[in-house]
Amino acid sequence: MREAYVHGYDPRENERLQDQAGTLVDLLHADTAYPAGSMVLEAGCGVGAQTVTLAQRSPAARFTSVDLSADSITEARRRADQAGLTNVVFRQADIFALPFNAESFDHVFVCFVLEHLARPVEALAMLNRLLRPGGTITVIEGDHGSTYFHPDSPAAHAVIQCQVTLQREAGGNALIGRQLYPLLVAAGFDAVRVSPRMVYVDASRPELVDGFTRKTFTAMIAGIRESALARGLSEPDRFDAGVQALHRTTEADGMFCYTFFKGVGAKRRGA
Amino acid sequence: MREAYVHGYDPRENERLQDQAGTLVDLLHADTAYPAGSMVLEAGCGVGAQTVTLAQRSPAARFTSVDLSADSITEARRRADQAGLTNVVFRQADIFALPFNAESFDHVFVCFVLEHLARPVEALAMLNRLLRPGGTITVIEGDHGSTYFHPDSPAAHAVIQCQVTLQREAGGNALIGRQLYPLLVAAGFDAVRVSPRMVYVDASRPELVDGFTRKTFTAMIAGIRESALARGLSEPDRFDAGVQALHRTTEADGMFCYTFFKGVGAKRRGA
Repeated sequence: MREAYVHGYDPRENERLQDQAGTLVDLLHADTAYPAGSMVLEAGCGVGAQTVTLAQRSPAARFTSVDLSADSITEARRRADQAGLTNVVFRQADIFALPFNAESFDHVFVCFVLEHLARPVEALAMLNRLLRPGGTITVIEGDHGSTYFHPDSPAAHAVIQCQVTLQREAGGNALIGRQLYPLLVAAGFDAVRVSPRMVYVDASRPELVDGFTRKTFTAMIAGIRESALARGLSEPDRFDAGVQALHRTTEADGMFCYTFFKGVGAKRRGA
Repeated sequence: MREAYVHGYDPRENERLQDQAGTLVDLLHADTAYPAGSMVLEAGCGVGAQTVTLAQRSPAARFTSVDLSADSITEARRRADQAGLTNVVFRQADIFALPFNAESFDHVFVCFVLEHLARPVEALAMLNRLLRPGGTITVIEGDHGSTYFHPDSPAAHAVIQCQVTLQREAGGNALIGRQLYPLLVAAGFDAVRVSPRMVYVDASRPELVDGFTRKTFTAMIAGIRESALARGLSEPDRFDAGVQALHRTTEADGMFCYTFFKGVGAKRRGA
């Protein structure tokens, strides 16, 4: 699993994830806050891109943030220290074998994790076990199939498809956002509610042109160039033309959009 | 132009347009209201699907609603009478040759019209002339390329593409929503602001499953069957499989989404 992980831990990727969290923080987090004293599990915290935001927005909640990668945990801990957080404990652990008792958390938060898992419902069901009855799970995922832009470009869609294919070959699903509702229901959650969070970018929103279209989405796609070529999913000229077409959408007459999905569900009472 | 119009005036289509307005009314109209005494031009009112909502939401504004089709105007007038509206005047007129003086309106409203025009910027520029300086234009359009769903289905995308192709062959553009910003800027409007209005549908929203996925979008696609087959864009079995795949998204584990775009711009002062 680790080897195949598409968003790996390297400094450039790291910076991209950080930029992404910075640009999207309100869109994704504005409606998430946990009460004082509540115990919150962040499953799959990666390098802590969401952890700092989460913990700062709920300063009196107590977070346990876990990730499969020890390197990511080290980096996440460094960031949390740098931000002066005192309400987060980090642990290296596999989401499929978490070292916690049933019903030991009030809330669970999962962001950009299910997209990498071959068995997302199973992961959600295991997280469900860790929740006390009435506790909530919050899940945020993107969906690369939600991407469209102007000028439209088959070359750009083709490079995005390279990412979808790589992620599928790695056991994940880059189109998982649209499935949050059925996945949460299948995992046994109650009162599931999913809402789309669309990032709409045109030239009147220069901070998003730069922060999202250019430095988040296009940078992510550009970052899979070597993998896509090595796998024979594209050729250098075609790949570069696709990335160029994505950059083209950042011009004055361009438009780009992408949608994240945020789902919330509750652990059944008396289950 | 008239012959090629894709959303024609016939009772079933009429009902679809009405259902659409009923289901989407808040999403599309909630932030549109005109001050008392203001003169508002609704360009391309069709059978009045938006007119009743518009006029009821701004009861002290005075609307002039025009459409190219005399039949549509007759039906729109009937509906306005039925709704007891007293603040709307209807006129049959071509959007490219409107019988009004420059700067005779405070506001212009255009909904589901540009998608049918071969020269949308030219139409917007003519509407711009009719606005007093500082007056606003509001434009609402869909974008069929914004459609995605679960389960995903190439057959469903193919029938949607039939509609895109038919509309393009008729001189229109079913992907125009994403272009509202550059179109309004190109037509000379100031302070242009576009916002997406996504219709997100899953089984937790049964009124949208029925009102939007089934009775609006899928009904629209099913309604082009004969045209698509006559034009050789599909074959009966393939077309029906695509429509069936759209219906499949209305099941308990399904998801469907579509995005409208709403743009507002202002007539330049001192222009």
